[in-house]
Amino acid sequence: MTHTLDRLAATIASRKGADPDSSWTAKLLAKGPEKCAEKFGEEAVEAIIAAAKNDRANLTYEAADVLYHLLVMLAARDVDLADVLAELDRREGTSGLDEKAARKG
Amino acid sequence: MTHTLDRLAATIASRKGADPDSSWTAKLLAKGPEKCAEKFGEEAVEAIIAAAKNDRANLTYEAADVLYHLLVMLAARDVDLADVLAELDRREGTSGLDEKAARKG
Amino acid sequence: MTHTLDRLAATIASRKGADPDSSWTAKLLAKGPEKCAEKFGEEAVEAIIAAAKNDRANLTYEAADVLYHLLVMLAARDVDLADVLAELDRREGTSGLDEKAARKG
Amino acid sequence: MTHTLDRLAATIASRKGADPDSSWTAKLLAKGPEKCAEKFGEEAVEAIIAAAKNDRANLTYEAADVLYHLLVMLAARDVDLADVLAELDRREGTSGLDEKAARKG
Repeated sequence: MTHTLDRLAATIASRKGADPDSSWTAKLLAKGPEKCAEKFGEEAVEAIIAAAKNDRANLTYEAADVLYHLLVMLAARDVDLADVLAELDRREGTSGLDEKAARKG
Repeated sequence: MTHTLDRLAATIASRKGADPDSSWTAKLLAKGPEKCAEKFGEEAVEAIIAAAKNDRANLTYEAADVLYHLLVMLAARDVDLADVLAELDRREGTSGLDEKAARKG
Repeated sequence: MTHTLDRLAATIASRKGADPDSSWTAKLLAKGPEKCAEKFGEEAVEAIIAAAKNDRANLTYEAADVLYHLLVMLAARDVDLADVLAELDRREGTSGLDEKAARKG
Repeated sequence: MTHTLDRLAATIASRKGADPDSSWTAKLLAKGPEKCAEKFGEEAVEAIIAAAKNDRANLTYEAADVLYHLLVMLAARDVDLADVLAELDRREGTSGLDEKAARKG
């Protein structure tokens, strides 16, 4: 079965260039990449506030918003989720502390 | 096959309470939820800058960082990724614009 | 003559507890400290995007928004601008690199 | 007497192009506008967390960091604080709710 995140990314990609009145996602994408980045930023801030306050129900909700708006921002810049996941896979081979050392090196 | 995101979430969860010297993730989690939220915020800002500049290679890289640090922030507050994905599934039934109207209502 | 920032802080403070319909600031403060923090975060993101794009006119505008919303967030938590400025004065005595070393120490 | 913020802006401006080893500010400016924007973002997030937690001492401290890093970001893009303050003065003439209506209009 397709993973929720992949399915959502495909749905968002299909809204690119669609009539802005046809869906919330099409409307957002039509506003351009910067507006999408702003919205992602807003949701990131809300998730941070929920985490700081230890409001777990709200953190769950805001984290869903973060994932959705991250995917919209990626779609707005034609970055495939698959490439982002491949980057995470690539890092998995190296252990955490080594990875960080490698990154900073 | 397990999805990259689920596998990463499981790895991060397994590092909770582990010796901070054993991995980068264990070290980060040991610093507490606020520090994890700060790190998530830093990565969100870097992704926003990459998106604003249309630097796609960097956006791919920073989006991977955002996903990793979102999962760490969730783990720090004992929020399951499965619950976040379930929230996204729940929204999928409603169309975008209706969903937003429902949220604001 | 009173500095713009001090005058603005005084105006914002005077709106605390006022009828939310009497001004934009009163309306924002009535929504509570978290909402004020969210708004500050939104404006910070917009300033970051303007800086990343080297859009100087917009950066000027967004920096004004950042200052206004920082003051609102401080007022929402009853933190005096004077105390923030005193902290900046205090740091001025120590040279930059020494200060940073002292902070991290 | 010169206001703390104006004096700090002048100090920061004087560090532009200076030997990066001469001060923390010179070092930061030498890293370029994007790095300065990232640092501003980090401090904004820390201030938001302090506000969310109602940690007033920390909010005072982090707000000072936000002001400092906002000024550095402005200097990195050659935006004068005076122009930002003039924008705030300009808005002062219009009442809050009218101003917002005007902005959105």
